[in-house]
Amino acid sequence: MLRFGLIGTGRIGDMHARLVAVQPDAAVTWCYDVHADSAARTAAATGARATTDLDALLGAEDVDAVLIASPTNTHVEMILRSAEAGKPILCEKPIDVDMARVEECRERLRAFDVPLQLGFNRRFDPSHAGVQKAVAAGEIGDLELLVITSRDPGPPPPRPILEACGGLFRDTTIHDMDMARFVLGEDPVEVYAMAANRVDPIFAELGDVDTAMVVMRTASGALCHINNSRRTNYGYDQRVEAFGAKGMVRSNNHRPSEVSRHGAGGTGTRDELLYFFIERYRAAYEAEIRDFIDRVTAGKPPRVTFEDGRRALLLSEAALKSYQTNRPVEVDYT
Amino acid sequence: MLRFGLIGTGRIGDMHARLVAVQPDAAVTWCYDVHADSAARTAAATGARATTDLDALLGAEDVDAVLIASPTNTHVEMILRSAEAGKPILCEKPIDVDMARVEECRERLRAFDVPLQLGFNRRFDPSHAGVQKAVAAGEIGDLELLVITSRDPGPPPPRPILEACGGLFRDTTIHDMDMARFVLGEDPVEVYAMAANRVDPIFAELGDVDTAMVVMRTASGALCHINNSRRTNYGYDQRVEAFGAKGMVRSNNHRPSEVSRHGAGGTGTRDELLYFFIERYRAAYEAEIRDFIDRVTAGKPPRVTFEDGRRALLLSEAALKSYQTNRPVEVDYT
Amino acid sequence: MLRFGLIGTGRIGDMHARLVAVQPDAAVTWCYDVHADSAARTAAATGARATTDLDALLGAEDVDAVLIASPTNTHVEMILRSAEAGKPILCEKPIDVDMARVEECRERLRAFDVPLQLGFNRRFDPSHAGVQKAVAAGEIGDLELLVITSRDPGPPPPRPILEACGGLFRDTTIHDMDMARFVLGEDPVEVYAMAANRVDPIFAELGDVDTAMVVMRTASGALCHINNSRRTNYGYDQRVEAFGAKGMVRSNNHRPSEVSRHGAGGTGTRDELLYFFIERYRAAYEAEIRDFIDRVTAGKPPRVTFEDGRRALLLSEAALKSYQTNRPVEVDYT
Amino acid sequence: MLRFGLIGTGRIGDMHARLVAVQPDAAVTWCYDVHADSAARTAAATGARATTDLDALLGAEDVDAVLIASPTNTHVEMILRSAEAGKPILCEKPIDVDMARVEECRERLRAFDVPLQLGFNRRFDPSHAGVQKAVAAGEIGDLELLVITSRDPGPPPPRPILEACGGLFRDTTIHDMDMARFVLGEDPVEVYAMAANRVDPIFAELGDVDTAMVVMRTASGALCHINNSRRTNYGYDQRVEAFGAKGMVRSNNHRPSEVSRHGAGGTGTRDELLYFFIERYRAAYEAEIRDFIDRVTAGKPPRVTFEDGRRALLLSEAALKSYQTNRPVEVDYT
Repeated sequence: MLRFGLIGTGRIGDMHARLVAVQPDAAVTWCYDVHADSAARTAAATGARATTDLDALLGAEDVDAVLIASPTNTHVEMILRSAEAGKPILCEKPIDVDMARVEECRERLRAFDVPLQLGFNRRFDPSHAGVQKAVAAGEIGDLELLVITSRDPGPPPPRPILEACGGLFRDTTIHDMDMARFVLGEDPVEVYAMAANRVDPIFAELGDVDTAMVVMRTASGALCHINNSRRTNYGYDQRVEAFGAKGMVRSNNHRPSEVSRHGAGGTGTRDELLYFFIERYRAAYEAEIRDFIDRVTAGKPPRVTFEDGRRALLLSEAALKSYQTNRPVEVDYT
Repeated sequence: MLRFGLIGTGRIGDMHARLVAVQPDAAVTWCYDVHADSAARTAAATGARATTDLDALLGAEDVDAVLIASPTNTHVEMILRSAEAGKPILCEKPIDVDMARVEECRERLRAFDVPLQLGFNRRFDPSHAGVQKAVAAGEIGDLELLVITSRDPGPPPPRPILEACGGLFRDTTIHDMDMARFVLGEDPVEVYAMAANRVDPIFAELGDVDTAMVVMRTASGALCHINNSRRTNYGYDQRVEAFGAKGMVRSNNHRPSEVSRHGAGGTGTRDELLYFFIERYRAAYEAEIRDFIDRVTAGKPPRVTFEDGRRALLLSEAALKSYQTNRPVEVDYT
Repeated sequence: MLRFGLIGTGRIGDMHARLVAVQPDAAVTWCYDVHADSAARTAAATGARATTDLDALLGAEDVDAVLIASPTNTHVEMILRSAEAGKPILCEKPIDVDMARVEECRERLRAFDVPLQLGFNRRFDPSHAGVQKAVAAGEIGDLELLVITSRDPGPPPPRPILEACGGLFRDTTIHDMDMARFVLGEDPVEVYAMAANRVDPIFAELGDVDTAMVVMRTASGALCHINNSRRTNYGYDQRVEAFGAKGMVRSNNHRPSEVSRHGAGGTGTRDELLYFFIERYRAAYEAEIRDFIDRVTAGKPPRVTFEDGRRALLLSEAALKSYQTNRPVEVDYT
Repeated sequence: MLRFGLIGTGRIGDMHARLVAVQPDAAVTWCYDVHADSAARTAAATGARATTDLDALLGAEDVDAVLIASPTNTHVEMILRSAEAGKPILCEKPIDVDMARVEECRERLRAFDVPLQLGFNRRFDPSHAGVQKAVAAGEIGDLELLVITSRDPGPPPPRPILEACGGLFRDTTIHDMDMARFVLGEDPVEVYAMAANRVDPIFAELGDVDTAMVVMRTASGALCHINNSRRTNYGYDQRVEAFGAKGMVRSNNHRPSEVSRHGAGGTGTRDELLYFFIERYRAAYEAEIRDFIDRVTAGKPPRVTFEDGRRALLLSEAALKSYQTNRPVEVDYT
């Protein structure tokens, strides 16, 4: 039985709590949030104890691991305090949107030896993971072309969220950068990005973009394309396509049902895609927690590391710099 | 908070228990089974109390409703004892495979006024329910043709299960009979069936068939076809297709992921279909329990009734009789 | 170079003429029709000579084979006269809608030894033929279930055509009966049919039906279902699905393009299906003529025989009789 | 009746000749090739006169238009000689792989006033054209993202063809550049390309690449991605995907049939894609000729112009230069 202290009981934290509660060998025992009523609500739903005192949670004997789902700008602090408390950590992505803070966190973490898994949940999605497994198993031969389509359903999130998110590249593309590294099995070494403002004036007002195309290459010569938009009118568009000498394997979109319609307006019409990440990646979130429980319990290192989070951010920064300078950018991971 | 007493903790009962446990406003409080260790295992996983004494469960104050998942030949007894105890009932299908026992149960139930929902879970499947909703909303105009494909993945179940199940028509086709009534929105009045032994010698040994085709018509002139097999090598094949003047709506198969493959052997290859009912109909089972909780809590009558169970069995009997006599059979529902 | 005399230059005849003209080793040299201007138009388009004198065509030295595309009720006469003239025959289906005339034609044909191919063009469709080839090659093991969906796009044809066509079973279902025999690889021995009037009052006025479901079984125990409608609003719905122990192979619908649309109204929307037989089965018609040319040129017997036409009609008659008597009907092919 | 003189009777020329011959209002009257037997073969199949004397063809009274399908490095000469002869021209793409020769041809063409259609046949493909039509009709709102997948089936063409083709960008990508311009409805203004050698050593030996990714932007801010490979093992992969505020429209791959297979190895397996351009784009080639006939006959200017050919080549050159310099390249169309 792995007992979790949950840090942050917002929408994502609450979802995590419920997914933990379903596991036969795990439980949420403590819920922390700066908003007492939010903590109380999630605690009630999972049989946990609510608190607004982080030290109480981190010091509790019945907390075997922490799950960090607090706002992004608190992740570094929560990671370090949890590490000090010696608790294994499952932390939502990203580590931070400020590269300097990430590097500082990396330095300070050297003092501790706690397992830390970063929440790149898409790696656990049955469809995307199916592509990665097929590639890793050599089904398509050496990977030559990787095409990632990743478009959020609209409208744009509220301004405060946009202001804090670090911009399109650090907030959205970063997921695709991690997916690229995951499927490629190696690091991109050069990145070029084009971007535009097409979705909503708010992005330009914030100095951000809302539409982008990236190309990258790896040392071995694999090429990767990512395209992003902050808005679709047909749901959450999330696809991965890997191509090589022996074939192509793709992860296609998920829908709420397998209903199709034929009529005067056309044939084969399917549902809109699942709306957003909590619906689309529910199975991935559950598999991610399942894997964390299994590996922490077995004393194995987590599958997605701090370094994975850092490298995805480095790639996002490279894409941003490329866009700003209109030059391809070489990525330095040291 | 609706507190369930679970009667029967086999594979299906245990699944139900876990699905109840996930609901924020429901809990399993008692688990009964003739096998003490089975009851104990499910009880432990859900925080319930285990018992081999059915009266203890039915008499407990902290049991607001019962969920019957015991062997089919005990359903009638469990239904009647639960009704006597005044507990709302969610009972796995079928009521019984013996029509006489069903009629007797129906008579005796008149004395009680407890809500009873029969577990035709497929009615709650997002894809099949999507078809029914579209038809009921008039999307395809009057339904003219209904085609139901329903084939179990192989190999056949163990002999004892086959011996007790009542044969292909009462065990498998009955689900499709209920689906037909659900989507048609009216009762078939005449049934004709052809059947064969193609899958495994065991079916012939038991005097059963393993492959069948049924056609039916309703009073309004809608035609319905069902085809069944006891075995596929590609997973659990479950499709519903409704056709009318304004179009066609279909419920297609579900798969574990949205991965597709292109290679020298062909293109667009998808996963095998989900293997069997617990995997394929997980969402349906959850929605079924969710709906039962909502309706019992709100004092509304259940959506799937004892009479639905009786009529599906009458149709299965009609199909069987048609096969045995090689004549179309009119169905008498009185 | 195989030189064709075309008998009948209506819509189908004209299409055949153009398909012949494209073949590098065939030509249309004579066009006969009772309507001189119709014959002249097709003749002009293909460089042939037009005539309203059938004897001229049948007696011409530059006619190596005839293609009969005249009205159905003239087929028997045209077949016999062409046979007398010693010309190899490609004749549109059906032989006739009157079984007695078919039997008489069969008797009289015994006196002649000319190749005669009946125009069951669907056997040459790349998709349906692909299913047959897979079944014949043992890909799915023994065929156990065959499901044929065959629905004409609406509205219904003009009254004179309906009056002459012999009714739904002899006009539409007959194609599916031939497809069933083709894919099954054996003859159905028993047929049961249900039917209804759902599409248009004209069918009832003519004593005909417009909607039907058929089930059949073969001597080996394979089961086959056919469903028909005289009208869809989404195009010409033509599907074949064969199922056995080793898998399932299907022939799905054809569309004018591979465009798909995602939008607020749904995702994956495809074109309407190709409207009707000339569009849908263009490749089949061409392959049929190609095959006839090849086989006649090589002195091989045609692939689809008079007896195939007779047996398909026997099955259609059996379905009609079953519908009229509401009893399964055994088929006697002697 | 539009009478064609065909210049070049290789594989493509011969195909064009047959497609012309099928049109009711067009014919091939002359076939020219430097190889007399090749010219004779195509002439025989279409009832035309064969010649090795180009002047004979260009001077013939029964030649209303020319179709140039000779080797690429002769296109400029053939265009100019045909223009001098005053014949409307349908010329296979590209104009030339040498930009200087294209510019010179452009200069010299100013002296003539003959219609000239360049053979970007893909613009006439029902699927790709369907996407363009939807975009032009505003179905997806302003186009924001365009993704073009274009991969040739392998193995690579013979060395002499590769040596003459101008390299991947000028030979393959040029088609996608034209498709991009066609669907975007405006010109890309900046191009960036990455490329690699992954398919076969011969490409590196020739100083060429075999795998590429391009990103481009237009003045209005639309972004476009193209990915190319010289080899697939599953057929000719040709897709176009256009995305905007109001939705997404895609042109998917074509296959020889609509057969799908379900079995132990997976479900929904379709045929390999059509192998290569003559099979995949047969309908496009026919529609292209049809359109040329219609427009020349009606005195309308051709739909695809010399300038379209020039601009596609300018974009291919820009992609090549970008790859060589590893810098984004602005495109100057003046």
